Amino acid sequence: MSNTFGKIFTLTTFGESHGEAIGGVIDGCPAGIEIDLAAIQQEMDRRKPGQSKIVTQRKEPDAVRFLSGIFEGKTTGTSIGFIIENVHQRSNDYSHIKDSYRPSHADYTYDKKYGNRDYRGGGRTSARETANWVVGGAVAKQAIPSIKINAYTSSVGDLFLEKPYQDLDFSKTEDNIVRCPDPIIAEEMIAKIDNVRKEGDTIGGTVTCVIQNVPVGLGEPIFDKLHAQLGKAMLSINAVKGFEYGSGFCGAKMKGSDHNDIFNEDGSTKSNLSGGIQGGISNGMDIYFRVAFKPVATIMQPQQTIDKDGNIVEMMGKGRHDPCVVPRAVPIVEALAAMVLADFTILNK
Amino acid sequence: MSNTFGKIFTLTTFGESHGEAIGGVIDGCPAGIEIDLAAIQQEMDRRKPGQSKIVTQRKEPDAVRFLSGIFEGKTTGTSIGFIIENVHQRSNDYSHIKDSYRPSHADYTYDKKYGNRDYRGGGRTSARETANWVVGGAVAKQAIPSIKINAYTSSVGDLFLEKPYQDLDFSKTEDNIVRCPDPIIAEEMIAKIDNVRKEGDTIGGTVTCVIQNVPVGLGEPIFDKLHAQLGKAMLSINAVKGFEYGSGFCGAKMKGSDHNDIFNEDGSTKSNLSGGIQGGISNGMDIYFRVAFKPVATIMQPQQTIDKDGNIVEMMGKGRHDPCVVPRAVPIVEALAAMVLADFTILNK
Amino acid sequence: MSNTFGKIFTLTTFGESHGEAIGGVIDGCPAGIEIDLAAIQQEMDRRKPGQSKIVTQRKEPDAVRFLSGIFEGKTTGTSIGFIIENVHQRSNDYSHIKDSYRPSHADYTYDKKYGNRDYRGGGRTSARETANWVVGGAVAKQAIPSIKINAYTSSVGDLFLEKPYQDLDFSKTEDNIVRCPDPIIAEEMIAKIDNVRKEGDTIGGTVTCVIQNVPVGLGEPIFDKLHAQLGKAMLSINAVKGFEYGSGFCGAKMKGSDHNDIFNEDGSTKSNLSGGIQGGISNGMDIYFRVAFKPVATIMQPQQTIDKDGNIVEMMGKGRHDPCVVPRAVPIVEALAAMVLADFTILNK
Amino acid sequence: MSNTFGKIFTLTTFGESHGEAIGGVIDGCPAGIEIDLAAIQQEMDRRKPGQSKIVTQRKEPDAVRFLSGIFEGKTTGTSIGFIIENVHQRSNDYSHIKDSYRPSHADYTYDKKYGNRDYRGGGRTSARETANWVVGGAVAKQAIPSIKINAYTSSVGDLFLEKPYQDLDFSKTEDNIVRCPDPIIAEEMIAKIDNVRKEGDTIGGTVTCVIQNVPVGLGEPIFDKLHAQLGKAMLSINAVKGFEYGSGFCGAKMKGSDHNDIFNEDGSTKSNLSGGIQGGISNGMDIYFRVAFKPVATIMQPQQTIDKDGNIVEMMGKGRHDPCVVPRAVPIVEALAAMVLADFTILNK
Repeated sequence: MSNTFGKIFTLTTFGESHGEAIGGVIDGCPAGIEIDLAAIQQEMDRRKPGQSKIVTQRKEPDAVRFLSGIFEGKTTGTSIGFIIENVHQRSNDYSHIKDSYRPSHADYTYDKKYGNRDYRGGGRTSARETANWVVGGAVAKQAIPSIKINAYTSSVGDLFLEKPYQDLDFSKTEDNIVRCPDPIIAEEMIAKIDNVRKEGDTIGGTVTCVIQNVPVGLGEPIFDKLHAQLGKAMLSINAVKGFEYGSGFCGAKMKGSDHNDIFNEDGSTKSNLSGGIQGGISNGMDIYFRVAFKPVATIMQPQQTIDKDGNIVEMMGKGRHDPCVVPRAVPIVEALAAMVLADFTILNK
Repeated sequence: MSNTFGKIFTLTTFGESHGEAIGGVIDGCPAGIEIDLAAIQQEMDRRKPGQSKIVTQRKEPDAVRFLSGIFEGKTTGTSIGFIIENVHQRSNDYSHIKDSYRPSHADYTYDKKYGNRDYRGGGRTSARETANWVVGGAVAKQAIPSIKINAYTSSVGDLFLEKPYQDLDFSKTEDNIVRCPDPIIAEEMIAKIDNVRKEGDTIGGTVTCVIQNVPVGLGEPIFDKLHAQLGKAMLSINAVKGFEYGSGFCGAKMKGSDHNDIFNEDGSTKSNLSGGIQGGISNGMDIYFRVAFKPVATIMQPQQTIDKDGNIVEMMGKGRHDPCVVPRAVPIVEALAAMVLADFTILNK
Repeated sequence: MSNTFGKIFTLTTFGESHGEAIGGVIDGCPAGIEIDLAAIQQEMDRRKPGQSKIVTQRKEPDAVRFLSGIFEGKTTGTSIGFIIENVHQRSNDYSHIKDSYRPSHADYTYDKKYGNRDYRGGGRTSARETANWVVGGAVAKQAIPSIKINAYTSSVGDLFLEKPYQDLDFSKTEDNIVRCPDPIIAEEMIAKIDNVRKEGDTIGGTVTCVIQNVPVGLGEPIFDKLHAQLGKAMLSINAVKGFEYGSGFCGAKMKGSDHNDIFNEDGSTKSNLSGGIQGGISNGMDIYFRVAFKPVATIMQPQQTIDKDGNIVEMMGKGRHDPCVVPRAVPIVEALAAMVLADFTILNK
Repeated sequence: MSNTFGKIFTLTTFGESHGEAIGGVIDGCPAGIEIDLAAIQQEMDRRKPGQSKIVTQRKEPDAVRFLSGIFEGKTTGTSIGFIIENVHQRSNDYSHIKDSYRPSHADYTYDKKYGNRDYRGGGRTSARETANWVVGGAVAKQAIPSIKINAYTSSVGDLFLEKPYQDLDFSKTEDNIVRCPDPIIAEEMIAKIDNVRKEGDTIGGTVTCVIQNVPVGLGEPIFDKLHAQLGKAMLSINAVKGFEYGSGFCGAKMKGSDHNDIFNEDGSTKSNLSGGIQGGISNGMDIYFRVAFKPVATIMQPQQTIDKDGNIVEMMGKGRHDPCVVPRAVPIVEALAAMVLADFTILNK
């Protein structure tokens, strides 16, 4: 198990879906940073389940209890411990997965690797873990206040927000439950997810993230390139199947004469197909990337699967239904990006 | 700078394009592994420049000199040092980039970050570094001989090899200079690259990699998931803009009822949209992923850029021309994948 | 701040003396280990303050609350989070050190390094942190049950237990409050400490630790030698000024012809001045080492010191008095040793 | 194997006594540091064998070949690769240890741990490795030019240099072959070692190291305390059995009222029994520590030992005789200390 994220600014986490509490330790946060606890709780509320009809209905207050490292409102440079109690876990709901493996979940691989698994609610593999990440990211954001990080839902299924991010107003992202800053596309996305929900099915989508006001010089080549760390971070989120930054997979179709970003006199570039990073180091232009999420594996439809002994059994999704994970992933993407940038910022000092 | 790759099986590298030599240290390789030096050199030859008309014409023998860690043909468990002499560096070719920044290269960011840069041939940012990775990967392959890793060129520009990998014969990949196992598409790709070459331009493409015969249980959640480490590795390669595994970005368009992989009685799955990994841990099915490469930034056409003082200058690509980096990236992708798998295999023991 | 101990079996901690709680995350513990919670609490009770007249009188139940990573009595391979509530912190006692620096404490260096410090009870520098270590060590002991670790008080001031460890009965260590397995010397030590206590003074001493039944092969040269990791661990304990293993500083006076350990036919050695480690790797013989503790800096006597502005002020020790830290250090030494050995054992598998 | 030293400023090494070459990679050295190659070679010459009658007579030029990371005389921030060719290895001398284990050497433990060992000259366990460390340390010294590091031989056998370091003139350390800055004691030490040499025996001793002009604030509690890292570094040197800093083992005999360092108004202290470190962080006072070396295990006398099959055999030391390792350890101690301080200095920026 590798439960630590980052190199200098680090987050080490623990917790199962149905354990008593989850939590973590933030280490390497500089001393003297004023911590706005309300802002942290606000990030938590963005992530938490049960916010709307299109996400899982588990109800958790997700109140963060900070236990150390903050004194008289400021960080002290010591490690910041925190816990989040699990209030609404319902262990009795999960007996059907105790001995059977849910398709496209990690039940099978955990069982084969560890032999002993807390099956309740997916245990450690539950997306509940991401609440810890949002705490880390919220603290990280306060450590690098000048850097602006905005993520949003850029597609649901085959429905894409085609506008470039430059034409979007990020202040509108939170105006709708799907977290798409274009209100018209947002309505279509919500309708699509709602249909999927009624079918007892789930659907994938993508999150786009834009990072602005980044100083030149973040990123450590050769093996800790800024975009490589961002990519690894995003690929740590459950259900993520792909990551691209700058021109991404489209760039692979292009010619160099079209793709090269020509410099302005001040070192900025006329185009930014590079996505704000050259040779693994930020160049001061906007960083932008896109993350692909597969549809959630838990569906409210009968599926064939196997039990521990290899017998074919039928399984029906039970409990809470999360038809599209993408809207809730938006604050998680931001949180991980914030931690990556804080890590490199501190290292670069 | 972070010049170490891996956690247990590690590769630490050094070297500039036009320095005396490049090289590295492989640490954590188990003792008692028989090292086939000819097989390592064969991997080096696959990567080295000057192999054909469609790649850069720099001529380097790329002979690896192992200095330690191997005794009487076997690893001893001690660190394996190696160097590769730079034979054909031509420093006089690079005076034009001493004081100017090539568009979409890392000249600008290195200069801003470090202040002091070896501009000759791109210095540390040169793809020459990947020769070190191929050494590491070749040793890694010998440490995990049962795992089969096959990469190939799956697109050049908008020309795609549409066949699924299951319909390909990997033994044919090395039969053509573009490293596409389908001979007909390969011819088209070569023609396309040759046209681009004549224009003095460059073109992007993708590499697909398939890893077979992987034991169940490799990968360390939460933050060292197998696919996250693969993704980070691939994003470390120059010019890479995207990574996807399993269903990838296509999976983001799908519904859960279509995407879920239904189990067979033996724990294998009927489909494998998961790409051989569940919850960050290998499940024994084939792992497959795709890597997007932008077109090489050095083109043989005049481009506008700036010098160190912010003056607009015109720059003409000089020296060697690498119209498409994708075929040469094939062994590099394999090498990095091999190191990731060796790392997790050793950790998992 | 570096709040993580170990490489594979790791402990990451947090907590201030007078914060709400302290705690940590144990990562890398193998799955399937039966956890004996009563045995863990027993270790906690050995360390906790207020046990006898010769140690600090702070009263803490030191009840460990495990939050994750253990399911149905066994480890699951996921991270083990735990907290220990601070019950009896008394913040009002520490106003005198808010603006002044206690001599030979870390008030001054923390203030200069971090600017912002939780001065209550020493904050993060308090020995309260070692409660976390005992949790980590207690879990580690259960992960390596065949290895036997026994520490004891081997000197207080200039009063030494001269007997070699082979002549001691470790089962008697807990029979007296000074944790010296020789009952006669123990009485003398207790009398000495009690005199020091009455003077409002403190006194140093040494702890000896013996590790038995160690398999051959633990330790990772060159830079993670077994004894180097043990030494670093011990030097992490507050008040430790020295570490020696095997022949130690005495060995530096000897000749090679006297110092060399001659082999028996079975690979064991006739003498063991090497202390069970050769070239950084355990050789199967007993490992033994000695740790030097300076006297605790907080004395119940008036001392001259300075305040934040550099003014000379007089300070009188307040609150709890810990005349000799050595007896309470015994379980801490064992805990750190257990974590070092668990780390190498898991790595060596 | 763990062949990397340090966290930010790192040295990764390789090489066997009788391989083709040894070498390493220095990573994390800041850019823009002027490298004085002559000063580096001077450090190498201090360490190299064959300097005088009292050390091993192996003759090696120990010329360092830097391969990267330095451009036009300055570091570039990229990794610094270097090799040192082994010129005078004589493989035929070591046949007697191919199948037998030298007492108090690491032959036995390496064989049991790795199965496959380069027995020639001790292979990886040879003190030849320390040449790599001196390169790393010499570069580190140039990265932290204001910090002054002086080590010297403070005892040989039971002959001690009793003077406190404040009464010594470090500029005289290199005036004699035993590296003791007191010329009278130096003569006695040399005579003692020469007698031991004539007996075909070896003798231990201690090195004291003094670090001056250290800024306040270096060191990372809880688990990377400055003295803990120094201790671990020193315990990585072959033959080291103990480490103490500040008052050390003597401090364990003292009372707090005598041991506490009383502050002056400027934050300096009247005494410095703390050894320049409080709570793991430098306080600006001199750091001083002492390192204990056991006698070298290779003696020119017949000794009983065992072969691989457990048969008792007689072994006679062959080849070079190093009667006292202490004088040659002086530059090695300095080198490791320099790397530790460079690491913390860079991290602290």
